[in-house]
Amino acid sequence: MTISLSPIGTVKNSRKVVEDDHWGEIISTVELNSSFSEESLFGLEEFSHAEIIFYFHLVNDEKIVSGARHSRNNKNWPKVGIFAQRGKNRPNQLGASIAKIIKREGTRLFVQGLDAVDGTPVLDIKPVLREFLPREEVQQPQWATELMKDYW
Amino acid sequence: MTISLSPIGTVKNSRKVVEDDHWGEIISTVELNSSFSEESLFGLEEFSHAEIIFYFHLVNDEKIVSGARHSRNNKNWPKVGIFAQRGKNRPNQLGASIAKIIKREGTRLFVQGLDAVDGTPVLDIKPVLREFLPREEVQQPQWATELMKDYW
Repeated sequence: MTISLSPIGTVKNSRKVVEDDHWGEIISTVELNSSFSEESLFGLEEFSHAEIIFYFHLVNDEKIVSGARHSRNNKNWPKVGIFAQRGKNRPNQLGASIAKIIKREGTRLFVQGLDAVDGTPVLDIKPVLREFLPREEVQQPQWATELMKDYW
Repeated sequence: MTISLSPIGTVKNSRKVVEDDHWGEIISTVELNSSFSEESLFGLEEFSHAEIIFYFHLVNDEKIVSGARHSRNNKNWPKVGIFAQRGKNRPNQLGASIAKIIKREGTRLFVQGLDAVDGTPVLDIKPVLREFLPREEVQQPQWATELMKDYW
């Protein structure tokens, strides 16, 4: 089974090179393709956050991991499955991140803290609802907390 | 530009029919396809929650909305853009939900509260890290809160 998707838009920002950390201050616009009108984004500005689903388009096929590996190749952290980490070299190359909504202008959505480089194809935008966040306390291993130290 | 994806697994649960509400108690297994080994899920059980990205495979192409509509066709709620709501009849038919991890058994992940029907193709699994949740207070319009009243 193959699923064919078409990007709905593109990320534009100042981050031209793929780097691991320091995404917090980056302002991005998600620009919808010409097949969409501003109606598609109506009302999104009433939410404080949006989840952006995007495609890690710069990933080299040969680097995709389907088993286990050390995150960021850091041997101090345990070798865990690709689905126990959020890195880009993953099957289907999908990214999903919550960003803060700044404003909407026509078919452009301005957000802060989206961890995707300039030119990234966007597959979906969803509003963040409180009820869709974890309804129990979130627990995670120590290595994951360490990895995120300088992320934002 | 077309992006071709292959499901990495399938949702199995007792929910055979698409319904809007009462997902909270549903236990699902996400069963990885035979091209993956149990290594792919190693360490995921150290997280309390996983985000499952899936494909709304039962959606009829003709029902996909790319502009604005009333959520659940409820005229008491404002007409908002498809990207300001999380309904299934959307471009690219992608779903993304956070579910509570119960356990991992080989290539099967047991979760609670995944809002996807039996047979849904899964495109990705990501661990939920505290740092990837909103870093500011979440705000949302009143209609969204009303819509979620009986969801879980």
